[in-house]
Amino acid sequence: MSKKYVYSFEEGNATMKSVLGGKGANLAEMTNIGLPVPPGFTVSTEACTVFYENEKQLSEEILVQLQEKLEVLEKQTGKKFGDKENPLLVSVRSGAAFSMPGMMDTILNLGMNDHTVLTVGQKTNNMRFAYDSYRRFIQMFSDVVLEIQKYKFESILDIYKEKNGCKDDTELSVENLKDIVEEFKNIVRKEKGLDFPESPQEQLILSINAVFKSWNNPRAKAYRNLNDIPHNIGTAVNVQSMVFGNMGDDCGTGVAFTRNPSTGEKKLYGEFLVNAQGEDVVAGIRTPKSIDELGSVMPEIFKQFVECAQLLEDHYKDMQDIEFTIEQGKLYMLQTRNGKRTVHAGLRAAVEMVEEGLITKEQAILRIQPKQLDQLLHPNFDEKTMEQAIPLAQGLPASPGAATGRVFFNAEDVVRESANGEKVILVRRETSPEDIEGMVAAQGILTSRGGMTSHAAVVARGMGKCCVAGCESAKVDEELKIFIIGNERIEEGDYISLDGSTGKVYKGSIKTVEPELSGHFSILMEWADKFRTIGVRTNADTPRDAKAALRFGAEGIGLCRTEHMFFDEERIPVVRRMILSETTEQRIASLKLLLPMQKSDFKDLYTVMEEKPVTVRLLDPPLHEFLPTEEKDIVALAKDFEISIERLKETIHSLQEINPMLGHRGCRLAVTYPEIAQMQTRAIIEAAIEVMKEQNTTIVPEIMIPLVGIKSELDYVKSIVVSTAEQVKEEMGSSIEYLVGTMIEIPRAALLADEIAKETEFFSFGTNDLTQMTYGFSRDDAGKFISEYKEKNIMPDDPFESVDQDGVGKLIELGVKLGRTTKPSLKIGVCGEHGGDPKSIEFFYKTGLDYVSCSPYRVPIARLAAAQAVLQNK
Amino acid sequence: MSKKYVYSFEEGNATMKSVLGGKGANLAEMTNIGLPVPPGFTVSTEACTVFYENEKQLSEEILVQLQEKLEVLEKQTGKKFGDKENPLLVSVRSGAAFSMPGMMDTILNLGMNDHTVLTVGQKTNNMRFAYDSYRRFIQMFSDVVLEIQKYKFESILDIYKEKNGCKDDTELSVENLKDIVEEFKNIVRKEKGLDFPESPQEQLILSINAVFKSWNNPRAKAYRNLNDIPHNIGTAVNVQSMVFGNMGDDCGTGVAFTRNPSTGEKKLYGEFLVNAQGEDVVAGIRTPKSIDELGSVMPEIFKQFVECAQLLEDHYKDMQDIEFTIEQGKLYMLQTRNGKRTVHAGLRAAVEMVEEGLITKEQAILRIQPKQLDQLLHPNFDEKTMEQAIPLAQGLPASPGAATGRVFFNAEDVVRESANGEKVILVRRETSPEDIEGMVAAQGILTSRGGMTSHAAVVARGMGKCCVAGCESAKVDEELKIFIIGNERIEEGDYISLDGSTGKVYKGSIKTVEPELSGHFSILMEWADKFRTIGVRTNADTPRDAKAALRFGAEGIGLCRTEHMFFDEERIPVVRRMILSETTEQRIASLKLLLPMQKSDFKDLYTVMEEKPVTVRLLDPPLHEFLPTEEKDIVALAKDFEISIERLKETIHSLQEINPMLGHRGCRLAVTYPEIAQMQTRAIIEAAIEVMKEQNTTIVPEIMIPLVGIKSELDYVKSIVVSTAEQVKEEMGSSIEYLVGTMIEIPRAALLADEIAKETEFFSFGTNDLTQMTYGFSRDDAGKFISEYKEKNIMPDDPFESVDQDGVGKLIELGVKLGRTTKPSLKIGVCGEHGGDPKSIEFFYKTGLDYVSCSPYRVPIARLAAAQAVLQNK
Repeated sequence: MSKKYVYSFEEGNATMKSVLGGKGANLAEMTNIGLPVPPGFTVSTEACTVFYENEKQLSEEILVQLQEKLEVLEKQTGKKFGDKENPLLVSVRSGAAFSMPGMMDTILNLGMNDHTVLTVGQKTNNMRFAYDSYRRFIQMFSDVVLEIQKYKFESILDIYKEKNGCKDDTELSVENLKDIVEEFKNIVRKEKGLDFPESPQEQLILSINAVFKSWNNPRAKAYRNLNDIPHNIGTAVNVQSMVFGNMGDDCGTGVAFTRNPSTGEKKLYGEFLVNAQGEDVVAGIRTPKSIDELGSVMPEIFKQFVECAQLLEDHYKDMQDIEFTIEQGKLYMLQTRNGKRTVHAGLRAAVEMVEEGLITKEQAILRIQPKQLDQLLHPNFDEKTMEQAIPLAQGLPASPGAATGRVFFNAEDVVRESANGEKVILVRRETSPEDIEGMVAAQGILTSRGGMTSHAAVVARGMGKCCVAGCESAKVDEELKIFIIGNERIEEGDYISLDGSTGKVYKGSIKTVEPELSGHFSILMEWADKFRTIGVRTNADTPRDAKAALRFGAEGIGLCRTEHMFFDEERIPVVRRMILSETTEQRIASLKLLLPMQKSDFKDLYTVMEEKPVTVRLLDPPLHEFLPTEEKDIVALAKDFEISIERLKETIHSLQEINPMLGHRGCRLAVTYPEIAQMQTRAIIEAAIEVMKEQNTTIVPEIMIPLVGIKSELDYVKSIVVSTAEQVKEEMGSSIEYLVGTMIEIPRAALLADEIAKETEFFSFGTNDLTQMTYGFSRDDAGKFISEYKEKNIMPDDPFESVDQDGVGKLIELGVKLGRTTKPSLKIGVCGEHGGDPKSIEFFYKTGLDYVSCSPYRVPIARLAAAQAVLQNK
Repeated sequence: MSKKYVYSFEEGNATMKSVLGGKGANLAEMTNIGLPVPPGFTVSTEACTVFYENEKQLSEEILVQLQEKLEVLEKQTGKKFGDKENPLLVSVRSGAAFSMPGMMDTILNLGMNDHTVLTVGQKTNNMRFAYDSYRRFIQMFSDVVLEIQKYKFESILDIYKEKNGCKDDTELSVENLKDIVEEFKNIVRKEKGLDFPESPQEQLILSINAVFKSWNNPRAKAYRNLNDIPHNIGTAVNVQSMVFGNMGDDCGTGVAFTRNPSTGEKKLYGEFLVNAQGEDVVAGIRTPKSIDELGSVMPEIFKQFVECAQLLEDHYKDMQDIEFTIEQGKLYMLQTRNGKRTVHAGLRAAVEMVEEGLITKEQAILRIQPKQLDQLLHPNFDEKTMEQAIPLAQGLPASPGAATGRVFFNAEDVVRESANGEKVILVRRETSPEDIEGMVAAQGILTSRGGMTSHAAVVARGMGKCCVAGCESAKVDEELKIFIIGNERIEEGDYISLDGSTGKVYKGSIKTVEPELSGHFSILMEWADKFRTIGVRTNADTPRDAKAALRFGAEGIGLCRTEHMFFDEERIPVVRRMILSETTEQRIASLKLLLPMQKSDFKDLYTVMEEKPVTVRLLDPPLHEFLPTEEKDIVALAKDFEISIERLKETIHSLQEINPMLGHRGCRLAVTYPEIAQMQTRAIIEAAIEVMKEQNTTIVPEIMIPLVGIKSELDYVKSIVVSTAEQVKEEMGSSIEYLVGTMIEIPRAALLADEIAKETEFFSFGTNDLTQMTYGFSRDDAGKFISEYKEKNIMPDDPFESVDQDGVGKLIELGVKLGRTTKPSLKIGVCGEHGGDPKSIEFFYKTGLDYVSCSPYRVPIARLAAAQAVLQNK
């Protein structure tokens, strides 16, 4: 049996997008629900696949089916291809399963030739219209099918306009247009050595071929790469009988949304032009009128259109973006699709549609892309000011929002200038924990190195601060205090602007606008919370972070990084003295000074979080991160500590590592310096006991041991934690409960999770490090080749953005399975950056995790994504 | 039913080592095969466990059994504890299941007191002997049981000797000894406030307690840590009636091996003393005579001893180390055990015992520790010169052998000095590929950083060159050209000596001796080859390495690292020009210059290896490793290349990585610079085709793609390799076959081995990198804390020395299982350093690998270990 490759609109429906493409499926659907759609048919995406398999030719089978459907179309319209009485004219449009606006080609007025142009002229009594349509067809066909450069035709038009003193195409006379058609045909003859095809059949086949070919044109490929659309699914082609909005004043064309796509308000929103074709609206030569005015211009048509629009919204149960044409007083619907909208509009429409009974809460929840919520939470560029902005460079969109300010190159300068009231952007090759103060003070951060999970990116996201990271084309010289992008040289004090949502860097200042959270947002989030089954915590190190996260709905802290507290200006000298201790006694003495500071941090956090769970991770980074790297700072520190510069340098050197990521950090520090873990445990437990007494609440601290890879490593550190905690309890006469858990971030820990689970009350997957080690990618260095891997299609997704379900995911699944084998009650979460990524959250939900933890500004995204995960996997 | 804790010698046998200890089991065995063993009994290791469970006291049950056996002993000897007529004297000796020579305590002459001393004196008619035995007993008992410091007794002895003008203890008179006994008892009274125990029963119980306690003395614990002996198995105690070799000229004592422990020659080897106790032999005051002379001194006894020795060797089927005593013309066997021997002796004895029909080939193979073979292949220190050598420091035994020479601190100096005929030791903080030439020219290498698989260690092992790595106590200043260890300051040109088998560093020059390979070695290796089922290849980059490996029995090359060829003096400028290329065209131009060089390398390798398989790995290290790091070299290079120093530094900086181990290397280079992989493939295939024609042989090159973590990464690089290879075949009109495989060294690759196997013909596990990533350990940095982990018992073995079977092993098993699921014919090997480690080889055998590949000097070890793996798992 022969496969079906060509479908009349009557034969399709909206569910057939993969076969008919989005446009074709919707044309079929509209036809079948009785809307006035010009008849036509769709050549399927499967025909496109066959086309490519058949050396880019339509197969005999497809040609036969095409001819059949053409005959049906001729019957439906009462017109015939090339007919002298009643010639059929059609449009040929591409339409893939995924929307790829403007990426592929369209041909209108197909069927025109030297004979039919006359018939059209006579039948419409408008020879100018007929010849104008003819020359447009030749132009489009020559561009799309014959691949002759467009300017060759445009220059002819220009010559004629100049010769006749016309400003606009529409002023050209019939005679002019006839001559132009001849000149156009001469170009074709000259360029291709052949006559312009007169046969409509030949025109059609060549056009379908050209549309199929356009699937693989460079800009279509680039668009698919950018939007994660597969390359092998092909496009469909829609062949539809032409209707003309430009045949007179009883004609027109327009575009309308069933609701306002900016605000979501339930009110038709759109525009139309009388006596015009679709492309005239786009060209912007004439200013279109508001759709409301159609009511006074053509009241009957307007009434019919409003009904159609309502029917379509009710039918599709979503805001529709509709194209229509009026030909000689008759309304035709040319296209409908779900309307693109701002997140504000999306939220309002979704919530109101639930209230209207149009959709369910589940549908409303599924309708909002979680990542879009970011726009609601961060400042954005003022759209008007943006129009003139030209990006200097493209980095990674490391932390969303917009920022503008003067450039400074180190934390000290940023802090000083911002104290003086300047808005400042911190620009560095890469940031380190030393830069924290500067990052807090800056409006935004730009780095030339590092990926989506580099220090700058992670910290900035935690702060909800705009960051563009890994902008490789920016050559940053921190000593000279300049950076160079191409020919542009940006000096200290110059203005730049960053868009952390796109990764773009702009020269000069761009106005930003602050975000507002609407009531619709809160309603939708409440609905989401009812459906989700996985908890959402936050990664927060400070009361400020914690408060922000609570406002966004966090249910606890999944990761408090104690080291961030160590970089405070007052504390870093004590921390450094601790690190540079030569004996355990000296180290203990410095730790005694740190104890009250850490304790007060934890008390503040517990006070903010009340009885919600707070997971504190013991000190994680390698100690050299706390020591200065620049000569002048080393000299100052040596003087301060009264030791020789040489000795200090030697110590710093001895702490340096070739691969610090795989070095002396995490629980390895606690093994070497148990006194640090003791101090931290004491601070955690004392703080909790004191806050419990002060506030008369119950707190169950969660102490998390990082970077465990060996069961006995955990045993060793856990025994330090437990013995200290028990001692504090006895000292303070408290019976506080506490949990000891571990991060699973070393592949070996996941492989041996059954062993490790025996000695821990919770697991938290550290998916950043787990990804680094499972792939052998350093997140600080991989940016360079990851972008190349994406381009070459070796790795479709950045595994630091969305968890690699095949590889890293296999380890996570194994870790969960093994962990719960020996301890069925094990609480399991994730606290890597993936905790805020919707795709990853769905995976974590399916893997059976109890909670995710993400930066405060990703909490709403996680809540929504967690609800969607449940609904999508019902 | 009561458990048995005390065994008469008649009740035990040689298989009961875990209960009776090694010594006790052998005493029982000797007793039961009819040898003249002084009667006695053994308190079991299980009693030791009970002792520790019972608050370090013998339980009532044990005391009852002890008393029973004591009565049996009294019956056997016709003597009685404390008896005035015929007093029983016994020795009390520790004896654990594993030999721990000198680590625990011994008490002789127990049973002596103020009464029995007189009886012994009268019965032997030698009052001097009796009192000398008594004072010796008090001394030993006071030391071991009462824990009084030894010098207190020795100083009394010294005072008496001085007072009486005696040089030696033996010159003291009976009266002197009587006084000394009284003085000794006074010390006990003064130190412990009690009288020296007169009751032999009490003496015995206290002594047994003391021996059990000595199981946990610090030096015993340290010994067990060093030798991987469990701490919880306890020791047994042997109580044996005393025989005396020092009662007159019809007495004597001696030690003998059934074969020569240095050479293996089948001839009694040992020494004896007339009228002496065992400790006199050890003390070295009198020079013992060769065991042969016993034949003339006591011909009957000698004949009896020779028979006993032969009986023991035949019985134990191994070389025995025997202690004996002659008391008044009667021979007693006091101990027998398998004799410690050099590897030379071990080989000869094993081979000859097979020839004698004493043991099977299987037994011979299992009798040699594979790691010992190292001694045969490398120079060693002359033993005599070693006696005075005092080690300066202890590093890691990174590559075995001994080396002595003058210290130089960079490759250039080493090359120059060694060209002048100096023997040179290269000393560096750590080595990098830049140092290769210096490493080749040096006698040995010392580094202060890096572990067992650091660059220095890996390269040195490959070269068979002595290396001590990670000697943290050496502060190396490469600029000042000195290094400091404690108070010692070693300057350029000073002599040091290195023992790469122990990790010790000595000051000054120590004579070395070259090794010789014996015929017995070859015979045993041939036997091993017959039994093993897993192939043994070598990691070799040069024809020199390959030749060495073939001599040692390698069956192919499992890893040829092409980058090592890039560091040649002639080539490195071209390599650098390639790296610094700004365009692909420039890079291709440099690669064209490299092509003939690489090709000639491969031709040389193929010529050496003939038809044996050669696996070539495509370029692996990050490119910055090829660029200079020192200011002066950068300046020179910039001048050479006619580019600005600043630009060169910028390029070098841009190539540097924070975690180079996880950076832009391996197949990631081939993705970015396909032209490098093209050049290398061309060189490999052209070389093979040319050598095949020249030598009329068949070569099947194996091209290995490193660091694959993603299937599409492999696809991408493989397509470059295959298209290049096919082009070369066509150009040269050849139908050569070749294999394309991949390294499995990224955890993700093991997790997705089923996918990856689809596109590869072989896997080679890169266990070094796999271990680094599975543990999150950088082999360059982990040395620091791995030693601490071992000390704290967190990690018993260094996972870079012996593969971690629980974690990394799980990935390997998974990789093998998944790989063979999709491709049952997949050839799988391992080319990490673990390929030469016996324990790891056994694991690889059990996991079903086809071959291991190791550095040339480990090939014999691998062959033997592979045979043992089969035999041990039969």
